Amino acid sequence: MTTDSTVLDGLDFPTSGLAVPDDVADLLFRQARTVGAFTPEEVTDEQLAAVYDLVRWGPTALNTVPLRLLVVRTPEARARLAAHMNESNRERVLAAPVSLVLAADPGFHAHLPVLAPHMAALADALEPQPEQREQMARTSALLQVGYLIVGLRAAGLDVGPMSGMDAHGIDAEFFAESGWRSLLVVNVGRRDGVGTPHPRAARLDYDQVARTV
Amino acid sequence: MTTDSTVLDGLDFPTSGLAVPDDVADLLFRQARTVGAFTPEEVTDEQLAAVYDLVRWGPTALNTVPLRLLVVRTPEARARLAAHMNESNRERVLAAPVSLVLAADPGFHAHLPVLAPHMAALADALEPQPEQREQMARTSALLQVGYLIVGLRAAGLDVGPMSGMDAHGIDAEFFAESGWRSLLVVNVGRRDGVGTPHPRAARLDYDQVARTV
Repeated sequence: MTTDSTVLDGLDFPTSGLAVPDDVADLLFRQARTVGAFTPEEVTDEQLAAVYDLVRWGPTALNTVPLRLLVVRTPEARARLAAHMNESNRERVLAAPVSLVLAADPGFHAHLPVLAPHMAALADALEPQPEQREQMARTSALLQVGYLIVGLRAAGLDVGPMSGMDAHGIDAEFFAESGWRSLLVVNVGRRDGVGTPHPRAARLDYDQVARTV
Repeated sequence: MTTDSTVLDGLDFPTSGLAVPDDVADLLFRQARTVGAFTPEEVTDEQLAAVYDLVRWGPTALNTVPLRLLVVRTPEARARLAAHMNESNRERVLAAPVSLVLAADPGFHAHLPVLAPHMAALADALEPQPEQREQMARTSALLQVGYLIVGLRAAGLDVGPMSGMDAHGIDAEFFAESGWRSLLVVNVGRRDGVGTPHPRAARLDYDQVARTV
């Protein structure tokens, strides 16, 4: 395992072609699995905040950072969320230690004077363009969902992302005031080791997805 | 630095709340910066393939893995790409060691019999629904762009993501046959250490982006 400061200098390339230790690559990607059943262990707000504090540094267009999180904890809130999930996902939301509704905020422009001071004028230009703001928010927030899933795993947590849901229903249920737009629901916890995980699904090879010009 | 197997067991929580070493958290997020100027050092196909091999394990809806990469290397191809970038991004594309056009493939369903054998029938159901396929492809491919940016950094590379471009122009220029839809262009290389980086832009705090119910 690589443990010296050359990791940060990007000078260290083991045979895997990576600059991080193998067990980190395993934790974040290679051994990580989508999880459906969790232990009852609690996931605290402090853990979620630590993950967010890490991944908020990931790049977004114009530094808009439009991802928002609804942390669903109480039995009442779980039931409200489960009612808008596809049937196969309902029990998972009710049983998970915590569920996150990950959403895009079309009102991100209100923060631009702080987030992108040199483009503060853009906030005014975007104000009368709600559709463009929603599109911008969705695009960058989805990048941030990618960072967040990696970040949750970097905190030793397991995730179960789900897109089988009535997004408009969730928006009406929880975001009528904020105007947030739900993208994905992610259950978070520690995987229940009971039972054998099903075999891992295949992925495409680099040669199948990349072309060089 | 944490180097033992408890990292993988998720049992190791230093004060930062993370299960990865601090220098990894720095490399992937906290010290990583969007880079505009790179050294001339080459980025090889082997490096890019190693990154893809890592991040392809990240979750996508129904395991559709719809992200595609156009690796732009030759001077001729760079010029064709630069012509569709916003003016402020043209010189960056011409100067970078390599530029990746990251795209979504609405034809992902052709791979479903391999990627999701238990849902092979879905491929036929999606065939006559190009708009739904494009929407599905964009959503999951953007998650994968998030994974890929983290993965490039995990390989010790620096990235310069750019969305200031004529996406339709790029699609017509490069993807008329494949039907891929460009999402983002990312320059990849090693940051040129010359000059002082500008101060880091602010981010929102957890309390600004999260609500609990």
